[in-house]
Amino acid sequence: MKKGLNIVGTRVPMLDAGLKVKGAAQFTDDLVLPGMLFGKILRSPLPHARILNIDTSRAEKLPGVRGVATGRDIPDRQYGIVPMAKDEYALAKDKVRYIGDDVAAVCAIDPEIAEEALELIDVDYEELAAVFDPREAIKEGAPVIHEGVKNNTSFAINKEFGDVARAFAESDAVFEDRFYSQAVNHAPLEPHAALAQFDPLNGDLTLWSSTQIPFFLRRNLSNTLQIPESKVRVIKPKVGGGFGQKIDMFAKDFCAAWFAIHLGKPVKFVYEREEVFISTRQRHPMYITVKTGVKKDGTILGQQFQAHADGGAYNSTAPTMIALSCFFLMIPYHIPNLIYEGCHIYTNKPVGGAMRGHGIPQARFAVERQLDMIAGRMGVDPVEIRIKNSIHAGQPHSAGFVINTCGFSESVTRAAESIGWQEKRGKLPLGRGVGLAGASFPSGVSNMSHISSGAVVQLGRDGAVNVLSGAADIGQGAETVISQIVAEELGVSLEDIRITAADTGITPLDPGTFGSGVTVRAGNAARLAAMSARNKLFEFIAEKLEANLADLVAENRNIFVKGSPEKGMTFSAALKAYQYADLPMPIVGRGSWMAPASEPTTLFKEDGNFAPSYSFMTQAAEVEVDLQTGRVKLLKMVTAHDCGTPINPMLVEGQLEGSVVGGMGQALYENVIVEKGQVMNPSFLDYGFPTFMEMPEIEAIEVETDDPIGPFGAKEAGEGTQLSPAPAIVNAVYDAIGVDFMELPITPEKILDALEAKK
Amino acid sequence: MKKGLNIVGTRVPMLDAGLKVKGAAQFTDDLVLPGMLFGKILRSPLPHARILNIDTSRAEKLPGVRGVATGRDIPDRQYGIVPMAKDEYALAKDKVRYIGDDVAAVCAIDPEIAEEALELIDVDYEELAAVFDPREAIKEGAPVIHEGVKNNTSFAINKEFGDVARAFAESDAVFEDRFYSQAVNHAPLEPHAALAQFDPLNGDLTLWSSTQIPFFLRRNLSNTLQIPESKVRVIKPKVGGGFGQKIDMFAKDFCAAWFAIHLGKPVKFVYEREEVFISTRQRHPMYITVKTGVKKDGTILGQQFQAHADGGAYNSTAPTMIALSCFFLMIPYHIPNLIYEGCHIYTNKPVGGAMRGHGIPQARFAVERQLDMIAGRMGVDPVEIRIKNSIHAGQPHSAGFVINTCGFSESVTRAAESIGWQEKRGKLPLGRGVGLAGASFPSGVSNMSHISSGAVVQLGRDGAVNVLSGAADIGQGAETVISQIVAEELGVSLEDIRITAADTGITPLDPGTFGSGVTVRAGNAARLAAMSARNKLFEFIAEKLEANLADLVAENRNIFVKGSPEKGMTFSAALKAYQYADLPMPIVGRGSWMAPASEPTTLFKEDGNFAPSYSFMTQAAEVEVDLQTGRVKLLKMVTAHDCGTPINPMLVEGQLEGSVVGGMGQALYENVIVEKGQVMNPSFLDYGFPTFMEMPEIEAIEVETDDPIGPFGAKEAGEGTQLSPAPAIVNAVYDAIGVDFMELPITPEKILDALEAKK
Repeated sequence: MKKGLNIVGTRVPMLDAGLKVKGAAQFTDDLVLPGMLFGKILRSPLPHARILNIDTSRAEKLPGVRGVATGRDIPDRQYGIVPMAKDEYALAKDKVRYIGDDVAAVCAIDPEIAEEALELIDVDYEELAAVFDPREAIKEGAPVIHEGVKNNTSFAINKEFGDVARAFAESDAVFEDRFYSQAVNHAPLEPHAALAQFDPLNGDLTLWSSTQIPFFLRRNLSNTLQIPESKVRVIKPKVGGGFGQKIDMFAKDFCAAWFAIHLGKPVKFVYEREEVFISTRQRHPMYITVKTGVKKDGTILGQQFQAHADGGAYNSTAPTMIALSCFFLMIPYHIPNLIYEGCHIYTNKPVGGAMRGHGIPQARFAVERQLDMIAGRMGVDPVEIRIKNSIHAGQPHSAGFVINTCGFSESVTRAAESIGWQEKRGKLPLGRGVGLAGASFPSGVSNMSHISSGAVVQLGRDGAVNVLSGAADIGQGAETVISQIVAEELGVSLEDIRITAADTGITPLDPGTFGSGVTVRAGNAARLAAMSARNKLFEFIAEKLEANLADLVAENRNIFVKGSPEKGMTFSAALKAYQYADLPMPIVGRGSWMAPASEPTTLFKEDGNFAPSYSFMTQAAEVEVDLQTGRVKLLKMVTAHDCGTPINPMLVEGQLEGSVVGGMGQALYENVIVEKGQVMNPSFLDYGFPTFMEMPEIEAIEVETDDPIGPFGAKEAGEGTQLSPAPAIVNAVYDAIGVDFMELPITPEKILDALEAKK
Repeated sequence: MKKGLNIVGTRVPMLDAGLKVKGAAQFTDDLVLPGMLFGKILRSPLPHARILNIDTSRAEKLPGVRGVATGRDIPDRQYGIVPMAKDEYALAKDKVRYIGDDVAAVCAIDPEIAEEALELIDVDYEELAAVFDPREAIKEGAPVIHEGVKNNTSFAINKEFGDVARAFAESDAVFEDRFYSQAVNHAPLEPHAALAQFDPLNGDLTLWSSTQIPFFLRRNLSNTLQIPESKVRVIKPKVGGGFGQKIDMFAKDFCAAWFAIHLGKPVKFVYEREEVFISTRQRHPMYITVKTGVKKDGTILGQQFQAHADGGAYNSTAPTMIALSCFFLMIPYHIPNLIYEGCHIYTNKPVGGAMRGHGIPQARFAVERQLDMIAGRMGVDPVEIRIKNSIHAGQPHSAGFVINTCGFSESVTRAAESIGWQEKRGKLPLGRGVGLAGASFPSGVSNMSHISSGAVVQLGRDGAVNVLSGAADIGQGAETVISQIVAEELGVSLEDIRITAADTGITPLDPGTFGSGVTVRAGNAARLAAMSARNKLFEFIAEKLEANLADLVAENRNIFVKGSPEKGMTFSAALKAYQYADLPMPIVGRGSWMAPASEPTTLFKEDGNFAPSYSFMTQAAEVEVDLQTGRVKLLKMVTAHDCGTPINPMLVEGQLEGSVVGGMGQALYENVIVEKGQVMNPSFLDYGFPTFMEMPEIEAIEVETDDPIGPFGAKEAGEGTQLSPAPAIVNAVYDAIGVDFMELPITPEKILDALEAKK
């Protein structure tokens, strides 16, 4: 814990943990409104088809049905999280583009009747040729999924930093390898849900939604419903996980609002698990070719990276995802020359979207795998090659990143040490092995135009501190972190803080939970608001105590002159005194924060400092491969992580643990299997992510740095850790059985096949 | 409508009318929390008894029961709305004092099981002698209901203004008459309810309650539960009427919180209608003697007023009620000399409390009735005697009231004119008659210590105006009135306003809904907050437009230089410009208002200006008495009302209409009948208040004045109107059949008896 801090840096449980473990926390589906109706969505049974006609008359006649809506009924407004990539209707207008596409919606007095009515909707389809492989979809003559999108390629980046041709020419060796990372579902425990209420008198729409981005959702609803943004209020109840899957607006949001407006009753939609799997978002499958030129000692001179992302039927965050997978090839290693050629390709399959790491886990798998392979080919130790190529703080950067703090090479050393690298690598019996991989991630992004976080801190006479924040806690603990920051800044106790977060009707603007920016953005905003409120109080108290403003400190619910604790008063006495002198109502402090950026609109266009700061980490795995069954058991995972100065080390460890599970899933278990456009395993049982039974020993090592931009020195801790567990595991499997796997997941079948082939 | 105003003064429906008529508004009982439990209260079957033992073991064993609580379990803290008069436990400690007193509470998985469990609680009582008539209870030797309270008289005022003895000596005639006003129940459509949730980790208690006074309730809960005020959050959902009955904390509030804390589950209590009748509050029955000295021409020289209020088993608002009934004898007539002798007497009956008019309807009935009788005896016209004795603005006042504006004598004239006084009074056939009565009421009170209202106005970039107010809209339309004031002050449209009212966790302090002060207190606070926010914007815009700050006006969503509408910009453009220059978050304006008072703690002690302003009104009734059945039909009621400048005339009329129903009930129908302490008619059917079938023609006449203190010249409109309908009706009955009724209600039986006696 940092010197002089009392609350920031402490291991406190999440503020809402009590209500959650008691089962009393309110998620969207827990909300009940008088006269509430229930909605269900009819989904396309075909991967690609034109809608010739929809007959809803039989459904409308079913007793208990209150409304049926199709694409014909709604405004002609496409939506999407990225303004330049809007390509989706809440309900299909003319075409369906994947099995599971939203076709029509029913609203009824109970969910069962709504479900029954779906079967009474008669849709006349003209089936079209479909394409399921992005490598086919990109070819001339492939079925056109979106009119006017050439080669089904909705977004592409071709970018060169430095001079790769010269780098390759100067290299001692150039290696080219191909990789594939599969479709992975976020599988949040809470399914997607929305509840809408409309006030017919004032035209006020309120939507409670399981969302990561209340303010963006407000904008999307306003656009697609064609009502002013000021008349839309989005409230985020408790959210049971998102991992990026709840960044988009979905049919459930739009349709709940649509029916609420048109029927004048509250309307709730809750997705079934099957719908979460098929009709929300997944991590993009990606076909990757990496060509890397190195010197004999393993120094990387240049890299060429090609990625074909299988986007499924719609864009979602496509441009962002491609840009991220491009730019973040530039850390944690010093890559002086890079060509990135990446594209997002439509197929008639479920839609890819943001998922923890957002385009980078796939790239990082390829790069970290190839790095091990190159190390092997050049006779360099995988640890050494990583340290040798590590980026360092203050170093000039070929993409223009400004690295203020960097604990990467230390993280490699400490992770290796802790996993027993020296004793174990290449020295364990057949079937046992160790491996590692590194990663880095931005703490939010600088160059997205005018995305600011705001916070209001109210100091009440009763001693309660009310924090209004637009940040969206989706289970990661954002509200706890923000509260710790405010408590620290005010010198009060954490239990004095009451936080209201993410109600667009009350809380100030915040972009939401994505890009690992919440702690930095919303944390800094809350800190500024707390300072503003505190300074109002300090000015008053300084005069009262006849002290210098600059000498006052607030600590343990007291305000006093530094070094003279007897010269002061309690925080609540100060508040009371202030409020008798000013107004008998809360002191209000406002704070707003935006990442500094000289060029605030450079995303996708220019180089520059992409993020206010960058986290770094190394994960090291030890595995055991059962040579009879092909099963891989992850014995231990060490994470050495530089997230600056952790606000709450326990929550950081929660993130690390979650990332290990995610990485195991990506490496060993998870895969959304699609046959002719049909998802074959859309259930927890069939999908089979890791459970408690598979959990390894986990060791967390904090590589502490003191970031000058993050609040109290903090950097992101949520997504970076998700990048390296999968390659670390696959690298360890190589150490265990000597097989280089290039495609994920490495299932027992693949391992047995590889062992067989090796014989 | 006042010149220059666009929104204040318009007839707009209540902002929440849409949701209410759609059935979608959320009252406390509509709220559902996961895992919610349900509570019921065991009530005393005896009017007065000592509790020897309570055995809860059988109840605890009933499957589904989660907890049972008795007075032994809870902290030894009495509560009450008036600090000096706390005499009540949430659950009885040693004694029960009326049939219906709170004895124990059960919490179970459904309300039926909780109800069933009540029957399994064995209470061992030692019955005590009870007393039901305050005239008996006040005697030496009567049963002692509260230890240490002599003669069961918990509060008394004996006060003289001027010199009554001399006034009587100088009078041409002195009349003494006795009156009785009965027990009346508020009968709000929504029964009393509370839902509590406790966060075991943070110790945060949240209570949703059907209450008029969220902040006082917070204080009472904090005191009785012995947890800090900062850990209690009270949220007021929609409230379906209160009329004063929801000013107190009740067992349902305490017990919901208590069980939530101890069981770790949300707990809901909803009272049955029978409980609302018996175990909440009612208007105090009052025995009144009025002695008045007049000159020949009807000029009042002095008055002696004695009141014995039957308080039932507890104090509730006793001191306030007695003080109000005393002080408001001093308006609307000029009473130069007055002796007031009033006391609050305990009996073993249901508890009296605040009810619309709060102690004054009973007094006003007596005074207005006697005034008619005196007029008759002296041969003066009832209209003339009222005008002659009317108070006037600016007139010196014997109790120290400062009357800034007064439309009383005009209200008498206009009400009389409209009912057809000249043509009808004394001239209608037997069985038909007209009558009138006057009244006045304070717009809030000045001399209650440090009761301030606060408001926060946030101007968002999307053009939405968020108002945070602590005011408690209980159906009267406070939120609409406040929103109109804010919209007017900002020059925006009413639909741009979004109001969040009465959540002690978010909204600033407000005393709540009582004393008819909401429009004045919370309205002024909101106006100041709006002005503060607007001025921040104006300062910026003035510089931008190179205009004088003082020349800027905001109107119709535009800000421009007065007289030069072309030199300006839209409100939302101004906001955007400001927020780019300052912080990209809402502008926050704060406002706080407290009635001016030189001596802020004079209640019950000194003379002085009791209220910031005073409303005045006259009601005139025309009735038809069925000589066969004794039934009185109210044909028409005219109300001429000076509520200053109405913010929303439609809502004022709603208040007038409600007051007519209340007055008819008091005069003709309603009476809580108690036999040996047992309420005999605790249901809507048996109690029999007026319905739509009995509604007369109602005419509303605005006597507009421009109050210098109320927002935009407004004065109260909620309670004053409730004072005079009953005496107006009874005075009209006198005109119809020549009988002077002195006791309420005048039922058909009484009328037939009187007609019989007259024969």
